[in-house]
Amino acid sequence: MKQHPARLIAKKRDGGELSAEEIRDLIGGVVDGSLGDAQLGAWLMAVCCRGMTAAETAALTLAMRDSGRVLRHDHVTRPKIDKHSTGGVGDKVSLLLAPLVAAAGVAVPMVSGRGLGHTGGTLDKLASLPGYRTDLSAERFAEVLAQCGYAMAAPSAEIAPADARMYATRDISGTVESVPLITSSILSKKLAEGIDGLVMDVKCGRAAFMPPVERATELMESLVAVGQAAGIRMAALLTDMDHPLGLALGNALEVREVLRALDGDCPADLREVTLALGVEMLQLAGLEADAAKARTRLEQLWRDGSLRRVFTQNLRLQGGDPRVLDDHGLLGAAPHVVSIPAPRAGFVADVDPLELGRVVVDLGGGRRQPADAVDPAVGVVLRKVLGDRVEADEPLALVHARSAAAAEAAARRVLTAMPVGDAPAARRPLVLARRG
Amino acid sequence: MKQHPARLIAKKRDGGELSAEEIRDLIGGVVDGSLGDAQLGAWLMAVCCRGMTAAETAALTLAMRDSGRVLRHDHVTRPKIDKHSTGGVGDKVSLLLAPLVAAAGVAVPMVSGRGLGHTGGTLDKLASLPGYRTDLSAERFAEVLAQCGYAMAAPSAEIAPADARMYATRDISGTVESVPLITSSILSKKLAEGIDGLVMDVKCGRAAFMPPVERATELMESLVAVGQAAGIRMAALLTDMDHPLGLALGNALEVREVLRALDGDCPADLREVTLALGVEMLQLAGLEADAAKARTRLEQLWRDGSLRRVFTQNLRLQGGDPRVLDDHGLLGAAPHVVSIPAPRAGFVADVDPLELGRVVVDLGGGRRQPADAVDPAVGVVLRKVLGDRVEADEPLALVHARSAAAAEAAARRVLTAMPVGDAPAARRPLVLARRG
Repeated sequence: MKQHPARLIAKKRDGGELSAEEIRDLIGGVVDGSLGDAQLGAWLMAVCCRGMTAAETAALTLAMRDSGRVLRHDHVTRPKIDKHSTGGVGDKVSLLLAPLVAAAGVAVPMVSGRGLGHTGGTLDKLASLPGYRTDLSAERFAEVLAQCGYAMAAPSAEIAPADARMYATRDISGTVESVPLITSSILSKKLAEGIDGLVMDVKCGRAAFMPPVERATELMESLVAVGQAAGIRMAALLTDMDHPLGLALGNALEVREVLRALDGDCPADLREVTLALGVEMLQLAGLEADAAKARTRLEQLWRDGSLRRVFTQNLRLQGGDPRVLDDHGLLGAAPHVVSIPAPRAGFVADVDPLELGRVVVDLGGGRRQPADAVDPAVGVVLRKVLGDRVEADEPLALVHARSAAAAEAAARRVLTAMPVGDAPAARRPLVLARRG
Repeated sequence: MKQHPARLIAKKRDGGELSAEEIRDLIGGVVDGSLGDAQLGAWLMAVCCRGMTAAETAALTLAMRDSGRVLRHDHVTRPKIDKHSTGGVGDKVSLLLAPLVAAAGVAVPMVSGRGLGHTGGTLDKLASLPGYRTDLSAERFAEVLAQCGYAMAAPSAEIAPADARMYATRDISGTVESVPLITSSILSKKLAEGIDGLVMDVKCGRAAFMPPVERATELMESLVAVGQAAGIRMAALLTDMDHPLGLALGNALEVREVLRALDGDCPADLREVTLALGVEMLQLAGLEADAAKARTRLEQLWRDGSLRRVFTQNLRLQGGDPRVLDDHGLLGAAPHVVSIPAPRAGFVADVDPLELGRVVVDLGGGRRQPADAVDPAVGVVLRKVLGDRVEADEPLALVHARSAAAAEAAARRVLTAMPVGDAPAARRPLVLARRG
């Protein structure tokens, strides 16, 4: 670093605004190691406590983007639009959305993450598809993108290496919950993908990264402003994560839900969020200015088999076994499946996504630590959702487990997470706000 | 650690109050390494930004004290009172104060530090006394203390090891300037010395650690409150560090000033601060309730040779060569001594201690980095102080340097640091406030 790190850190500690040059100097230190761990932890905490101006957040995002390789997909003539979600429970939207908007003429260069804690990750879901590879070279990624309109890959170590170190540090040092740090972490990687536009799905509610609507709204607005300042088109939806999305929770179980959805059998909430995000992507791509028309077009592509066709094309290109489309058993199955009967008649009064997400982790289907292995077959499949009428002993959910003991422990917790009450309850709207 | 560090760090980040148990858990992690560098940096910054309650600061101080060995000097029947200064330029008070109050019946188990940056350290000054050793074992330290009433030693790695790691981390991570962190760093080590009471000399002014009176006052009050909460008697003086203390700056030069002071030849400001702190120590020791009587008694002990006698006794006990008392040349001398003539007649309008402290460092008499070696012989000796009348070409100061080039560079800077003006200026009172 050119300047002494302690001076820059103290400037932020005292509420000062760092210049773009000072921020670039700090990010240089993050990448070449001249900013030590203690210094990085202290700086990140100073940002958590003092915040950053819009100009600082934009400078940080660009410096992090430029810390590694910045891709361009000049060979792709379609508008390149990606979608990113802040993470939830049961969120398998990307697997449907990417082929759907690709069928409509968008190019989606999608780089996804792995699950951590109660939130799942698209990479883990894809890993349950036999043969499917996400470790694509930049060249192969570009080929797949050009051939079928979308490609799905794991993050490359070449992309935004500053973020990799900062993210790992934030995770252990109590510096995760900061709007400028979350904004720059998300956007630095997305900007390096060479996209023309990005639609953000910012979750709020119990299982969201930032549960309160106010904080999630702040994050949504920061993402839109910084993305636009960095020169790409931005839109964002605030969507509900106070309940799970869809019925299946757990990697292979979720992919099975996706495969059924390709054929039209899709839970209403999953369909609604997928279409809402798709409409935004089509509009950002400039393919359809009118939201209602965009929605009609996507519904048509879903119904007429185009979605399934593009999904299949991508599956072949990325090494997946296409027989899985007609034989879901190829996804594998957990040996113990236990049904959870309702303890009484009534209405499902709650479906707690945070607790259900943790149940999936404890079944082996998620990670407590980044290095943990994931069991693709385990999880929970809901048979009832919030507000559903239920008879005594009627199944509330199924637990898919590796052992009988694990199934039993999970079943007890699912019962608590899905209380049955006397009055019907309704979910709040799935899309709570929009910016862009 | 029992709890996940990130949770405790985030609690402080969000302005929460940590319990004594949570703070002990964190300090346990500091000592056994289970709190990583990034986590420590983040926690320290959260404390800088959010502060600590009095209860938290006290709990932190005790946890840091208990991170290592806690001495007891049960064999010493005298009241055990120490003095600690927050550091300044030309501050050689400890070398006079410890033998003076020991002569009055106080036991002073003094653990001192090395200089860093523009502030000097008592250990570096003592190192210029031929043969004098400060690397005493705990047993030998206790013997010297019992035999002559005071002992002076370097910090032991056994004392408050948590502070050693925290201090080094704060130094590089922009987390130095925090009243609770400074309070706990100072008091944890002092409380582990097995003292009954402590007098703090909190400096304020340009060359002080916390220059503004308000911040220094806050620190003074925190030190008194936390020390008392930890069960020892406390007093504190806020003293001026807007100008150097005494005339000599540089290790051997300062010791020479001390040796002369033993025989009564002492600059007025050095004498005043020494006596003011001594009065506080005698009162804390319960040896003299009345401040005026305490002062008279100390003046008497200084005048009648008791101070010199106790100093000599300690010098012998700690391995020093007593011939130095009558032959100051044994302290060594720098080969180049350059006089700095006043550029014009007038009054000394300023004596900038910060710049003079830095000149001494650049002559080799101080440290930029903790591992730097120190040249004991170099430094600056003032011939004039603030407000003195000076004729053109009359010496303002002498520079003692290792080379002619170094002397010349220093001389130019001393001239700037000691401007001559038209009007007499007066120093503010040396003792600005008192708490206890």
